Amino acid sequence: MIDIAKDFRVSLPAWIDDELADVPAVLPDREDRMRLVHRLADRNWRAGDGGPFAALVAERESGRIVSVGVNVVLSRGISAAHAEIVALGLAQRATGGWDLGGEGLAAHELVVNWRPCVQCYGATLWSGVRGLVVAGQGPELEEITTFDEGPLVADWAEQCAARGIEVVLDVLRDEALTVFRNYREAVDENDDMEVYNARGGTG
Amino acid sequence: MIDIAKDFRVSLPAWIDDELADVPAVLPDREDRMRLVHRLADRNWRAGDGGPFAALVAERESGRIVSVGVNVVLSRGISAAHAEIVALGLAQRATGGWDLGGEGLAAHELVVNWRPCVQCYGATLWSGVRGLVVAGQGPELEEITTFDEGPLVADWAEQCAARGIEVVLDVLRDEALTVFRNYREAVDENDDMEVYNARGGTG
Repeated sequence: MIDIAKDFRVSLPAWIDDELADVPAVLPDREDRMRLVHRLADRNWRAGDGGPFAALVAERESGRIVSVGVNVVLSRGISAAHAEIVALGLAQRATGGWDLGGEGLAAHELVVNWRPCVQCYGATLWSGVRGLVVAGQGPELEEITTFDEGPLVADWAEQCAARGIEVVLDVLRDEALTVFRNYREAVDENDDMEVYNARGGTG
Repeated sequence: MIDIAKDFRVSLPAWIDDELADVPAVLPDREDRMRLVHRLADRNWRAGDGGPFAALVAERESGRIVSVGVNVVLSRGISAAHAEIVALGLAQRATGGWDLGGEGLAAHELVVNWRPCVQCYGATLWSGVRGLVVAGQGPELEEITTFDEGPLVADWAEQCAARGIEVVLDVLRDEALTVFRNYREAVDENDDMEVYNARGGTG
């Protein structure tokens, strides 16, 4: 019989407790949700867990925080463990099933600090969220960080809408770019910092 | 402080041990690799773990099986837990890191019973595999199963090639369609069978 691994675990970094210590359970203002995402994204690359990316799932109307996620590709050794995959998986664990749009649940939104890469775009479509809130889209992310985001269809937002997912753009966009620029500066200044996109990248 | 889940686990179904009991550690013939994938895909939907999808990661030249994956969206309650995500994550656990194309490793290929959905297409790009072997592509999967595979760029295979991933098409294609047709027949005949793509689907 083949001797293979049977499971893997995806988990948040231990430092997440520090960052969440002063965060209220409910963030009614959408900019406050994005502000938290930016803070986690900035802490994440400094801690060495992965790229400068974070996400959260919130109940859209109330602003109750259901989960948070950061990119833990480096620390967990799983290339799929982008911030969105982590946040969505943890939200599904919290709500008890694979469909965040399931009967009896509040409408959920995914808040991310840039337009998702092609993998996480797909993950968003299949998650059951009713909203995707991003700090920005456009070439700046790839230009600044050198991460490859993969090929996405031009009408990606319309394709979301067709599946019942409302897209909200440009929430604290400049603040997102600041996180990316600080990350890039650190990479340029530090030869030991692992940039993990040698073969096309992960974002 | 927010009370949130900190981790989730992705695991193979318990029945996988039965299916692998007679499988050699090395499958030098590519069709044999796909035959195993088809068998796992067929067992998977019958067991109720998720859709009729399976995958494996093998060392391309030797055919050593590094991991297998099936779609465990239903049984694990994680919408991202498609066969490819499971197989790639387990392969990364087995090889010790996020990059299956890393230094010192043999070239790996991902073998799947249809062209990946948009999420798993991205996951493939970021995984470090050097090859993607699929039983087929085309509208038949969505037509037969009613799963939504999401929007993919037209030049998806060229985009793989540009990132050092060789695409091999049409390995035991008819056998893939047989699995999908058997699944669909069972869905049509059984009102209790959960088809989990009410809001756009997962594949």
